[in-house]
Amino acid sequence: MNARDDVFVPELLARRAAGVRAATLALLDGLTPEDCMLQSMPEASPVKWHVGHVAWFFETFVLEPWQPGFRPFDPAFRELFNSYYVGVGERHPRGQRGLLSRPSLDRVMAYQQSVLERLLEWMDDAAPPQALALVELGLHHEQQHQELIATDLKHHFWHNPLLPGWRPAPAGEAMADPGPAAFRRYDAGLADLGHAGDGFAFDNEAPRHRVWVEAFELAQRPVSNAEYLAFIEDGGYGRPDLWLSDGWDARVRGGWDMPLYWMRDDGRWACHTAAGPLPMDPAEPVCHLSYYEADAYARWAGARLPTEQEWERAAAQAMAEGASLPADGDFAESGLLHPARLRADAPGFLGGVWEWTQSAYLPYPGFRPAAGAVGEYNGKFMINQMVLRGGSCATPRSHIRHTYRNFFAPGSRWQYAGLRLAR
Amino acid sequence: MNARDDVFVPELLARRAAGVRAATLALLDGLTPEDCMLQSMPEASPVKWHVGHVAWFFETFVLEPWQPGFRPFDPAFRELFNSYYVGVGERHPRGQRGLLSRPSLDRVMAYQQSVLERLLEWMDDAAPPQALALVELGLHHEQQHQELIATDLKHHFWHNPLLPGWRPAPAGEAMADPGPAAFRRYDAGLADLGHAGDGFAFDNEAPRHRVWVEAFELAQRPVSNAEYLAFIEDGGYGRPDLWLSDGWDARVRGGWDMPLYWMRDDGRWACHTAAGPLPMDPAEPVCHLSYYEADAYARWAGARLPTEQEWERAAAQAMAEGASLPADGDFAESGLLHPARLRADAPGFLGGVWEWTQSAYLPYPGFRPAAGAVGEYNGKFMINQMVLRGGSCATPRSHIRHTYRNFFAPGSRWQYAGLRLAR
Amino acid sequence: MNARDDVFVPELLARRAAGVRAATLALLDGLTPEDCMLQSMPEASPVKWHVGHVAWFFETFVLEPWQPGFRPFDPAFRELFNSYYVGVGERHPRGQRGLLSRPSLDRVMAYQQSVLERLLEWMDDAAPPQALALVELGLHHEQQHQELIATDLKHHFWHNPLLPGWRPAPAGEAMADPGPAAFRRYDAGLADLGHAGDGFAFDNEAPRHRVWVEAFELAQRPVSNAEYLAFIEDGGYGRPDLWLSDGWDARVRGGWDMPLYWMRDDGRWACHTAAGPLPMDPAEPVCHLSYYEADAYARWAGARLPTEQEWERAAAQAMAEGASLPADGDFAESGLLHPARLRADAPGFLGGVWEWTQSAYLPYPGFRPAAGAVGEYNGKFMINQMVLRGGSCATPRSHIRHTYRNFFAPGSRWQYAGLRLAR
Amino acid sequence: MNARDDVFVPELLARRAAGVRAATLALLDGLTPEDCMLQSMPEASPVKWHVGHVAWFFETFVLEPWQPGFRPFDPAFRELFNSYYVGVGERHPRGQRGLLSRPSLDRVMAYQQSVLERLLEWMDDAAPPQALALVELGLHHEQQHQELIATDLKHHFWHNPLLPGWRPAPAGEAMADPGPAAFRRYDAGLADLGHAGDGFAFDNEAPRHRVWVEAFELAQRPVSNAEYLAFIEDGGYGRPDLWLSDGWDARVRGGWDMPLYWMRDDGRWACHTAAGPLPMDPAEPVCHLSYYEADAYARWAGARLPTEQEWERAAAQAMAEGASLPADGDFAESGLLHPARLRADAPGFLGGVWEWTQSAYLPYPGFRPAAGAVGEYNGKFMINQMVLRGGSCATPRSHIRHTYRNFFAPGSRWQYAGLRLAR
Repeated sequence: MNARDDVFVPELLARRAAGVRAATLALLDGLTPEDCMLQSMPEASPVKWHVGHVAWFFETFVLEPWQPGFRPFDPAFRELFNSYYVGVGERHPRGQRGLLSRPSLDRVMAYQQSVLERLLEWMDDAAPPQALALVELGLHHEQQHQELIATDLKHHFWHNPLLPGWRPAPAGEAMADPGPAAFRRYDAGLADLGHAGDGFAFDNEAPRHRVWVEAFELAQRPVSNAEYLAFIEDGGYGRPDLWLSDGWDARVRGGWDMPLYWMRDDGRWACHTAAGPLPMDPAEPVCHLSYYEADAYARWAGARLPTEQEWERAAAQAMAEGASLPADGDFAESGLLHPARLRADAPGFLGGVWEWTQSAYLPYPGFRPAAGAVGEYNGKFMINQMVLRGGSCATPRSHIRHTYRNFFAPGSRWQYAGLRLAR
Repeated sequence: MNARDDVFVPELLARRAAGVRAATLALLDGLTPEDCMLQSMPEASPVKWHVGHVAWFFETFVLEPWQPGFRPFDPAFRELFNSYYVGVGERHPRGQRGLLSRPSLDRVMAYQQSVLERLLEWMDDAAPPQALALVELGLHHEQQHQELIATDLKHHFWHNPLLPGWRPAPAGEAMADPGPAAFRRYDAGLADLGHAGDGFAFDNEAPRHRVWVEAFELAQRPVSNAEYLAFIEDGGYGRPDLWLSDGWDARVRGGWDMPLYWMRDDGRWACHTAAGPLPMDPAEPVCHLSYYEADAYARWAGARLPTEQEWERAAAQAMAEGASLPADGDFAESGLLHPARLRADAPGFLGGVWEWTQSAYLPYPGFRPAAGAVGEYNGKFMINQMVLRGGSCATPRSHIRHTYRNFFAPGSRWQYAGLRLAR
Repeated sequence: MNARDDVFVPELLARRAAGVRAATLALLDGLTPEDCMLQSMPEASPVKWHVGHVAWFFETFVLEPWQPGFRPFDPAFRELFNSYYVGVGERHPRGQRGLLSRPSLDRVMAYQQSVLERLLEWMDDAAPPQALALVELGLHHEQQHQELIATDLKHHFWHNPLLPGWRPAPAGEAMADPGPAAFRRYDAGLADLGHAGDGFAFDNEAPRHRVWVEAFELAQRPVSNAEYLAFIEDGGYGRPDLWLSDGWDARVRGGWDMPLYWMRDDGRWACHTAAGPLPMDPAEPVCHLSYYEADAYARWAGARLPTEQEWERAAAQAMAEGASLPADGDFAESGLLHPARLRADAPGFLGGVWEWTQSAYLPYPGFRPAAGAVGEYNGKFMINQMVLRGGSCATPRSHIRHTYRNFFAPGSRWQYAGLRLAR
Repeated sequence: MNARDDVFVPELLARRAAGVRAATLALLDGLTPEDCMLQSMPEASPVKWHVGHVAWFFETFVLEPWQPGFRPFDPAFRELFNSYYVGVGERHPRGQRGLLSRPSLDRVMAYQQSVLERLLEWMDDAAPPQALALVELGLHHEQQHQELIATDLKHHFWHNPLLPGWRPAPAGEAMADPGPAAFRRYDAGLADLGHAGDGFAFDNEAPRHRVWVEAFELAQRPVSNAEYLAFIEDGGYGRPDLWLSDGWDARVRGGWDMPLYWMRDDGRWACHTAAGPLPMDPAEPVCHLSYYEADAYARWAGARLPTEQEWERAAAQAMAEGASLPADGDFAESGLLHPARLRADAPGFLGGVWEWTQSAYLPYPGFRPAAGAVGEYNGKFMINQMVLRGGSCATPRSHIRHTYRNFFAPGSRWQYAGLRLAR
């Protein structure tokens, strides 16, 4: 994160902390302790673990070093809820988080409450700015885990033949066809990209830096289910010439012939969603694609994925033109955890589905990770991953920015990840 | 099982069914729904799945074909709780049983209760003997799962760094050293082995058949922890000449240098038990050994494992001499799920720990599996496994016989399996 | 092997040694140095390695301890050509034997010649009987590797799409259909089995011991390709009820739907053989089956595999009735490395194809491995394998006996292994 | 490759083709047919396969479409020697190339000679420019395989405990210590990068495009063995904070604690080289590093890897200043296949060791793969790989350029890959 040591108002920060936690806990509505223990793959953690981990972050990085007379809630939690911070010590093996029936969900709920109370109490005091900066980081960290709670749970439930849903189904009539995507042209030129200004940003969004961007065209909306279905029906999953070599191998190995969570039954298409199985809606943006599928689709469509520089330039321009960006997308606050239908008249860049870019996740020129264990937050993952931009229907509205860099391995499919065409 | 169509008294059988179920449910005392969902490896199922499966057996093999107007509790359970009966249809993948947060434990409890009630109600009617034989099989099947509930749960909790215990610790002072094991000699001769008589037995214990058994000597008690510790301290885990070739490979691959559940800390030995971590008691029988370890130990001790024929002959002789066999061991009814200390004056053959034999699990001459899907019960597993005899502290007293054949792959360690020396 | 210290005539043994080696080298006719380096799987060694290893056995177990002034041909070979004798020291990893382009085949040929010459020279002296016993063991060891040279090479060439052959095709017209197999009945009774008499036998054939064998019937010839084809065409590979549980898993994992080396092209069946691809001959015995396939076939045919005791009893009786056993089969000396067609009038028990029995490979009562490193020859493999009896078309005639116990893992398919029905 | 249809002089191209082939065959000096069949891992092919494949390229992409009356040398070779061109048809599995004892090396030599003769004969005719462009591509393709022949063979021989060498050892005294590396500063600015001009370049070096490069400093020579040893001795392989997360996992999984081919014996360091084992020379550039090790070293040294843009800018500037670039490095023509010692007075950018950059291998803006099957040459590998620049001691001098983009997965270690520091 950026060092903005002088700008924190403890009261405001405390209010935000309480609000973020309330949003985290709201995600557990309708879930049982058994649901909260599910772990369907090493990359997807149990809901209970996420809850413990977001509290752990505050206890470990804020309370332990800064609170006078600090005493841990439970010394064993230091290891149990450490994700990957080698600087903090041992970690419980990632793939075995689903084997922690103890501590129970009740006890983890008591833990997060205790940490939050101690945090709020301590923030009344003369908390030093560098500690408050860690609180702010912790709040954004917690919002990231809110998104993971949703995407991981969807993956866990996918492994239950009953296909449980835990959210209401999207309401409303199917919209009219959004029509073909318009492409907008952007001229070549120098651009300053990366985070600027006073607001919070992760360290990987900095420093702001100059890039030369060649002229390009970018679609004004993501690819729809209907468009992706045409790729399927045209045999796109059976044509190696459309795929990257590693992508084709992943496709064969995984037996992929449709997006994750899609099902075909008697010629009808359906999707596993947060509301359980629903008919596939052609007007929604396609999602749960790997990079390989997004890339193959783009090649099939005679286009390509944008670079993150192109994407950010276009999004910055939209903002400069007065678009109230977060407003035009759909976010976690809707409670649906499902992307809204595409509309022709709202070419926003944020929300709905993450958009794969053709940029590898690498440091910006002059990048420096934060000092100490929180320096492990982003930098050590800068290899073998591709950048996604824009946020999704599972991202909190206050969490996303047009400079935000999300990143996943190219074979990952369990995020709400789609694509937007460039050429 | 044997066909004894004429001997069932429905009232007695119903009383037994209720008693067996009560014993099953007693095993859940102190467990949370989260505990009951744990699955630490594909071979070890969640407690909740075991409970659903024992009910499923009665619903599928008794109620569905025999109860007039049968209606399933939930049609989805037919697949969810099928273990390996291909004749019944599809099965939920074994390694993913821990991903079934739904149905909840509450609902599975309602399921087992519904099945039991319908079963008891139906048994009041003029139930045909061949159906009652399936009820009896189902009761023994349920008792097998009682043992698995205990051994699986111990394995699940072993993967939690908190090492939870869920049973009281064994009471009492450490007994005097049991002293060196006495060996008893048995002369060569023909013997009739396998199940005889009216009582229940599994199909794999039949038919009774004749074998020639050479003269042999057999220890009058299993090997103790103290004796096994001498093997460890003599470097037994580092000497390939003591091990079978496959055993040595398994040892290296698994990093084995002590029995499963043993821990060494600062030179002191402890064990993970049903009561949580306890100091290792030298007077207890060693257990949680693979066949490979039992075999290597026997070779180190200048002895060997007995064959199942030798074992059964000796046990039969003890019975003929008036030993009240089940009385002298320790069984699941103690509630401890931990083997009692060895005593010099009680050379029983049943209870305490299972004893690996050097016999492969193969059909007896003239073996015929039962007709229909229950024919899959035993026969199709007669490969790549070794026979264990005698029962353990997790076996119900009424479940074990001296003709009982248990079987596990030679690398399995999570059962209460020890050994007795022969020569 | 048995200890028969007083029976060796060095001159005769030397003549046999030269003859066995000549037979080994004859197997290399038509092979290039490149062919001799192939290794298609860890279990199948390169021809060159086999040649070096049989020489290594004599150099290590005979010359090194017994020859005055012994000097190794090349000190590095002690490790390179050690198969699995932990007592001898380190071994080159089994799966990497195909990576030894050096030593070249020329040098390995020089090695084997040097060892043989030194061995023959030393045997002129007053060689002690216990050393000569090791020579005899080494000759039988070399004959075992002759068979492996053939079966391994067949497997190696199977991985070359050109399917090279290196032996002449069997001559002659297709025989008349052998007709249905006759079954012969054997009464129940005590039998003395295992090796007896003065001739050589491996340690695992001893000691001779008594067994009770129940009455049984045994087919008078192995199962034919035609009979096995009926199993295939009846859907035998698609019916899990016919298979052992592990066997079904192996079938699915391996994609098995016909014997190894069979091919189906346009409805016609062919086999990869030592003469390259040939049409499948219905009158030949089926071979290259795993135990699982043999067992499933027997179940489908309403029969079962014999135990090794039944097999040996029947073979012994045939001998007692005057059958000149080795004469009626087909062996390696034919040079074809392909089983002859079955005949109705020659119910021999040796040669043609190995026959899977339903007996696990375990020690006979009273078994003792030989002292020293050669004690690793057999005993340490007595787990997870099934016994095969009878020898094959790749077995030297002088190597086989009716007490001979071959053993392979139940999933192995690259040996000439078929079956004979019992009931 | 670029389309330069009008610039080919068939006579000159034919002379080059003969010369390139002579260089390929010279790499086989001292190798046996057995050596030429080795395959130590799927990524490293046998020498024989490389020879067949470079001929296959000409036969498939030039002779087959362009030569009147074309007849293949052997129809089976079309599949056997296809590497990854899906557009051409089936391919023999990559990991099984070492199982092709047939065709023999002799026959593959006849194949390459036949293809070359037919190619040269055909080029006398009025060969169309677009076909000649494919010949030129084939020559550069063959030079790439010359490097792979060297690096793959080194890896194959590493798996032979005899550690064969096949090239003379570097001569000469150890040079004086090259002294600390000087860093040169480059100012920020726009730069035009990528291939320009008339010479040959691969499609992935185009199009020439503009980039903004921030100011940076670059070391004037690669990192030496002595410098890397200091990293080892400082515990660099044991400090996760220095490593990328994936890199640390790879290190643990592979047991890496020194560069590939290094050995430590009694405190002395040695390396497996093309001349067999040699003492480690501190003045040589470190090589056989993965990206992960190069990245960790740079972090330890308080620096970083350069981007490929920085590297190319610096190399271009050196050229503009009059450096005769290929002259100052060391290349395959020396016949040593070993990097020369570093000198303080020769800050060249080409030859010696490849240099990892921190750039992912991705398309340049406006990249278009060639049409047809040769379009699979580069583009489909643009994922999960990092760019290396500069060429190595195994690269032919005429093959390398300062715009050349090599690429390997970050865990690859068998290339002559080192690093140069930036900051």
